[in-house]
Amino acid sequence: MAPIALLTDFGPQDWFAGTLKGVIAGIAPEAPVLDLGHGIAPGDVRGGAFSLWAAFRYFPAGTIFVAVVDPGVGGPRDGLLVSAHGRHFIGPDNGLLSWATAGDPGRIIRVLGNPRFRLEPLSGSFHGRDAFAPAAAHLHRGSKPGSFGKRKSSLVELPPISSSYANGRLSGEILHVDRFGNAITSIFGEDLAALPGKPLGARVRRQAFPLRKYYTEAGPGKPLSLVGSTGLVELALNGGHAAETYGLRTGMKLTFR
Amino acid sequence: MAPIALLTDFGPQDWFAGTLKGVIAGIAPEAPVLDLGHGIAPGDVRGGAFSLWAAFRYFPAGTIFVAVVDPGVGGPRDGLLVSAHGRHFIGPDNGLLSWATAGDPGRIIRVLGNPRFRLEPLSGSFHGRDAFAPAAAHLHRGSKPGSFGKRKSSLVELPPISSSYANGRLSGEILHVDRFGNAITSIFGEDLAALPGKPLGARVRRQAFPLRKYYTEAGPGKPLSLVGSTGLVELALNGGHAAETYGLRTGMKLTFR
Amino acid sequence: MAPIALLTDFGPQDWFAGTLKGVIAGIAPEAPVLDLGHGIAPGDVRGGAFSLWAAFRYFPAGTIFVAVVDPGVGGPRDGLLVSAHGRHFIGPDNGLLSWATAGDPGRIIRVLGNPRFRLEPLSGSFHGRDAFAPAAAHLHRGSKPGSFGKRKSSLVELPPISSSYANGRLSGEILHVDRFGNAITSIFGEDLAALPGKPLGARVRRQAFPLRKYYTEAGPGKPLSLVGSTGLVELALNGGHAAETYGLRTGMKLTFR
Repeated sequence: MAPIALLTDFGPQDWFAGTLKGVIAGIAPEAPVLDLGHGIAPGDVRGGAFSLWAAFRYFPAGTIFVAVVDPGVGGPRDGLLVSAHGRHFIGPDNGLLSWATAGDPGRIIRVLGNPRFRLEPLSGSFHGRDAFAPAAAHLHRGSKPGSFGKRKSSLVELPPISSSYANGRLSGEILHVDRFGNAITSIFGEDLAALPGKPLGARVRRQAFPLRKYYTEAGPGKPLSLVGSTGLVELALNGGHAAETYGLRTGMKLTFR
Repeated sequence: MAPIALLTDFGPQDWFAGTLKGVIAGIAPEAPVLDLGHGIAPGDVRGGAFSLWAAFRYFPAGTIFVAVVDPGVGGPRDGLLVSAHGRHFIGPDNGLLSWATAGDPGRIIRVLGNPRFRLEPLSGSFHGRDAFAPAAAHLHRGSKPGSFGKRKSSLVELPPISSSYANGRLSGEILHVDRFGNAITSIFGEDLAALPGKPLGARVRRQAFPLRKYYTEAGPGKPLSLVGSTGLVELALNGGHAAETYGLRTGMKLTFR
Repeated sequence: MAPIALLTDFGPQDWFAGTLKGVIAGIAPEAPVLDLGHGIAPGDVRGGAFSLWAAFRYFPAGTIFVAVVDPGVGGPRDGLLVSAHGRHFIGPDNGLLSWATAGDPGRIIRVLGNPRFRLEPLSGSFHGRDAFAPAAAHLHRGSKPGSFGKRKSSLVELPPISSSYANGRLSGEILHVDRFGNAITSIFGEDLAALPGKPLGARVRRQAFPLRKYYTEAGPGKPLSLVGSTGLVELALNGGHAAETYGLRTGMKLTFR
């Protein structure tokens, strides 16, 4: 039986994340519920989209993801059930689901509109509890995707993860800084094939990050780049926190040659 | 099968929260165990009581809550099994269980006294592991509430969540600041009916928080109040962190008119 | 059915910890998966070893632990499956598994070498996902330990948890500071029997911590030592954060008399 996986910006200190599990347990007590994570920065839709994209393919077919990073909750944004890549994704229509569900020509987008699959009254500030978790639980119990609401031809899309090539260099940006201080960039490992010679490494401002295969291949305390576990180029520091040491932040530009 | 739900101040960095799950898995391997949350501030009994109160009604009937915020562990305070609202609540008798279990005239309070439902030797500093988790697991396996210990007529009560009305204004206090910087107050949405006219909004010190239905109904960067997902009035800032911006803290007084 | 328990330094903000659960759900959907914890400090092998040691005996026989604190990932260090104390421990050979698996003369150490129990291609930076979680899932499904790889006679060992006695005093060091500010030391409660008289208390620099049975036995705001829930002597402050108040840190020396 495929799990329901929860990804939110609710953090650990409140009852928000736990309450989703209570709601699901009440509707679909047999559903395995997994915390994919609740530590997305508050309101960081792009960070949530990135985590969902990086993780979803490692979950089994049929997994139902509930993703909640929802600063527009209660307002006019839609709630969605998106079926793509053999999995289901439930959450707000604000870009959060766009990266994980892209690239499947059979992607189906539905607006959550059926009041049978909600808690009533619907609050104005906690649709994770009142709309998204109940929808996931009903879907897990066997309600048909078509019964949740009307189809929609598109959703709010974030700019895609991409890099560009010109004059012997790839250009990209930093997409995510992880707990270890590694900066994950928008350059895919396979993009390196566009370079004219053997790939040498990345550069941010004036700092070079020579390409390596794993962290400790660089000497202790040395910077490096590597094709990380997401398939994207990462900037790292063997034995240290690259982002703090080199001032790396999400959105910064880099080149690779 | 109803779950066991865990709420503690153990945080993520130690083995405390995880160990409760190991103990339960050893006694009641079939019990679904849910993390309601482990991020209550260390020793913050009132914060734990609030989270438990805000969440419990969203869990199915029969849920067994293990709540541990227990600065008096090992001393004379009792351990309790409280049955109320169709659910069970296990934890220390220090006020932590009082809000969630209030309001049920059939509430039954028992002192955990039966050594069969404990790990021996009982440590002086970790009753979550040695007393509360085992009690929850044995209860889940079918041991009768009456076999856990003697009844007691009352428990330690925190002052109730309440507001007062006088001269056209409701007065209350800030009970909780959540991860998003929203300040949840002790004024219930239904209390607003006591106001002579249409409710206008809240005031803390000299800052006004006009009443809205949802966050983004206020303009970007504008303060607002709304009846939040707990049923209580919240103070918020659309697109920002109200508590940091306006210096809001637990215990501060507010008025609503 | 025994659980798979996860202990990592992945933290809450990324998809790393959640992804382990997705991988396991794909291979062994019936396996109960428990978060022992994901808050080990990044790269802190000794802290991870301590948490694993403190917790493992509270999990049922047959539990499969996946422990990942792995700064050498992708390099020459081995991945291990260690069977000891009726449980299995999977993780890198860097000392992380040494304390929990010590003391069992029947301990068997195997190097994870069988590509059938991995995700391919194996990344150079996320063996938790690609090697350790899949190994745990296959082991849970019934693959024999002997099929995972060759036996090895020893593993990387951290210096054991110990104290020394001389001239009427025990000497030890601080091993761990927990969320509550309690400093757990390397002196076992049973080591106190070596002292010539009734044990009086601990001393760090010039600060005394008189021996008590539980925290609130000391007066409010008073320091104390006690034999904690791990069996080791702890330094604490009733109602406060001992480590901050007295400047206690991992590695500091103490005496007990």
